[in-house]
Amino acid sequence: MKGFFITLEGPDGGGKTTQAKLLLEFLEEQGRPGLHTVEPGGTEIGRAIRALVLNPRWRQMASRTELLLMAADRAQHVAEVIRPALAAGQVVVCERYVDSSLAYQGYGLGEDLRLIDQANELAAGGLLPDLTIVLDVEPATALARTACRTQRDRIEGRGLEFQARVREGYQKLCAAFPERMHLISAEGDVKAVHRRIAELVASRIPGRG
Amino acid sequence: MKGFFITLEGPDGGGKTTQAKLLLEFLEEQGRPGLHTVEPGGTEIGRAIRALVLNPRWRQMASRTELLLMAADRAQHVAEVIRPALAAGQVVVCERYVDSSLAYQGYGLGEDLRLIDQANELAAGGLLPDLTIVLDVEPATALARTACRTQRDRIEGRGLEFQARVREGYQKLCAAFPERMHLISAEGDVKAVHRRIAELVASRIPGRG
Repeated sequence: MKGFFITLEGPDGGGKTTQAKLLLEFLEEQGRPGLHTVEPGGTEIGRAIRALVLNPRWRQMASRTELLLMAADRAQHVAEVIRPALAAGQVVVCERYVDSSLAYQGYGLGEDLRLIDQANELAAGGLLPDLTIVLDVEPATALARTACRTQRDRIEGRGLEFQARVREGYQKLCAAFPERMHLISAEGDVKAVHRRIAELVASRIPGRG
Repeated sequence: MKGFFITLEGPDGGGKTTQAKLLLEFLEEQGRPGLHTVEPGGTEIGRAIRALVLNPRWRQMASRTELLLMAADRAQHVAEVIRPALAAGQVVVCERYVDSSLAYQGYGLGEDLRLIDQANELAAGGLLPDLTIVLDVEPATALARTACRTQRDRIEGRGLEFQARVREGYQKLCAAFPERMHLISAEGDVKAVHRRIAELVASRIPGRG
């Protein structure tokens, strides 16, 4: 059985984790159990990088540094988790991947998109998702959903204007890569959002054997 | 006054720190006080990255991850320390820079040199040293000099064969970039090595004003 690589994108508070879990339950019902993983921090080394890159203490962190730390986390994740799982025929459902770097460091922080492509290429070695689902939600809604989290990390703390640029970036990416990337509204009921995702995945994932 | 960017390269135990200090004393006598800095770990963020990348605990770290962490450290160092100092007209004496990535992750670990050039370009944004001095020493000599250090870090612990490949890499780089890079034997007396470095620097650094 060939592996299948699905990424979930969108803001913190957009429902990625909830939808990833529901998608994996659905896949298991279909006889295709999968692996749920996340960036940054999908490996032990990645969790150490994540703690560093999101630490609100580092106000002086250059955007290029942030980009390269995210790339380092991704390189380890691809080598240690994603490639082995795909090689073993698993479905991989990953929250955030190369498009997060484009949306956050590119559209959000204004880094050159070609440089981010280069960093993504170094990190992922050309491994692109088979399918990317962008959960689209008003920045204010996403922010309200994360209000109960104890402390905002360095990237969450960048405010609504930054989050609006990130959202616009995701929308542009979906328009640029319509085959791979799909924008799904995450404003409504959790189960309704899940049904839209499950339909899309079912139409794209190859059958068993 | 225009800044001047000098890097010192070579193995741990090759005498980079000692020679950097002697060079800075010499420059100060010549009326050109300079800045002494190091990679990895030339900034506060860089020291957190350094602690992570050199931790002997991470045996599973992919070479690509190591390359990108070193690049992240460099990006912060260039943005926060090196570029501002050069812009202010200072001489910068930096232990390790882009050539360390080529020697260690490239020649040492076997990563593709073109990918390392890309990572260096992302990190340094095209800022190359005006002069690079490679301290050349037998790996066994360098190893003996670091024997008293309490614990070997993850890269020092790679053994003599690895260090021999790194040395050969430095020699090839010096042959490829003879204008910028100079191999200086660091086997002999500390002061004799210093005199060779001071002569070379004096012949290359622009005069005051």
